[in-house]
Amino acid sequence: MELIETCFSPLLYDLYKGKDKTVVIIDVLRATSSICAAIKAGAKKILPVATIEQAYEAKQNGYILAAERDGKVLDFADFGNSPDLFTPERVKDKVIAYSTTNGTQTIELVKDASKILIGSFVNLSVLTEYMIQNPSPVVLVCSGWKNKFCLEDTLCSGAIAEILIKSEKYNTFCDSTHAAIDLWNQAKPDLLNYLNKASHRHRLKNIVSYEVIKYCFTIDIANVLPYYDNGFITRLL
Amino acid sequence: MELIETCFSPLLYDLYKGKDKTVVIIDVLRATSSICAAIKAGAKKILPVATIEQAYEAKQNGYILAAERDGKVLDFADFGNSPDLFTPERVKDKVIAYSTTNGTQTIELVKDASKILIGSFVNLSVLTEYMIQNPSPVVLVCSGWKNKFCLEDTLCSGAIAEILIKSEKYNTFCDSTHAAIDLWNQAKPDLLNYLNKASHRHRLKNIVSYEVIKYCFTIDIANVLPYYDNGFITRLL
Repeated sequence: MELIETCFSPLLYDLYKGKDKTVVIIDVLRATSSICAAIKAGAKKILPVATIEQAYEAKQNGYILAAERDGKVLDFADFGNSPDLFTPERVKDKVIAYSTTNGTQTIELVKDASKILIGSFVNLSVLTEYMIQNPSPVVLVCSGWKNKFCLEDTLCSGAIAEILIKSEKYNTFCDSTHAAIDLWNQAKPDLLNYLNKASHRHRLKNIVSYEVIKYCFTIDIANVLPYYDNGFITRLL
Repeated sequence: MELIETCFSPLLYDLYKGKDKTVVIIDVLRATSSICAAIKAGAKKILPVATIEQAYEAKQNGYILAAERDGKVLDFADFGNSPDLFTPERVKDKVIAYSTTNGTQTIELVKDASKILIGSFVNLSVLTEYMIQNPSPVVLVCSGWKNKFCLEDTLCSGAIAEILIKSEKYNTFCDSTHAAIDLWNQAKPDLLNYLNKASHRHRLKNIVSYEVIKYCFTIDIANVLPYYDNGFITRLL
């Protein structure tokens, strides 16, 4: 049995990291949902860039740039961070540079893990099937909001952990994982309604459409498995 | 309406701190439960000391010393960290130096808050009544286990937050507070059974008795309100 741990904030990652561990990065609203959408739409590679300066440099170097901060598109970017923006017309066979408020920093942080997978509700089945076929100790890393705990990433980590434990290939002795599973079970009968209380959803209300939020909470709507390796995110499955 | 925030790990405290805020320190197993027990048993003052070195120094300076690390009594201490050890015979009218794995470090960390209250299940009513009579922005700080999220402190913060919100003097827009309240509502019909999954309870199993653990989860069993001021913990109510 492999062990599952859940890290509720990038600031806590040092307590969980290990070179033998697989990391799943979760940023439901919206980085990891959008990365799945982009890969599903046929993007060849995604270059995650952590800082605004690096995003600007990538743009200067000829990359197509998707970038936002605090929910707003950076003025020198080609487009922002919602999954509906990553259309085949825009991204098919292209390399996209991508920078967001929370998610892309998390990728930078976990770089030394043995395997880095991209997780969200939109790719729940393919992600967990892969993990069940390839068991390894795993840390589910919630990107949170500016290093604070956030509900939507926690619920997603709970959904992932629940499936892994049901497979009997995984187990957990981690309080955050237990909490995430219990919150997920409370939320799942009516996920969007439950998430009305999530602060980040309210933060985004005036910036992105309800359709975008709904997309990010739709299980398996972009059922591909992106992973990070050697500076780029590409398609594993 | 005053706002409630919940901080799940001392490592995240910088994201929540503010000089105008009241902090409630929570370390159910066992520091804040034991502090309430000590104050209820008539201890005059408690000097919280963060490091083993400071604990040794306090002992040299003539204090009665209660101190443990990882659930075990330090060999130069007079006794350890369970509430049943703080008997009137041992502590009445005395000044006790006190050092534990998690809780006393948290006190050190939050020193600059405007008011520092000691909270646990054992003093839930007097704590929340005081807070309702004296509304102020509040951060519920869970001591956790070595900076990791822990279930028992989270449930206690949820119990506190729920009472404060029901008073209509407080509200919250904080995801961790929502999560804590929802976990508390799941756990409260059978708290001890729910906490069977808490990792720290298992950590303590071979070290402290079931009676001690039960004490720490008994609402209002030591219904006094200790607070920290100027280096010492004393009785506020």
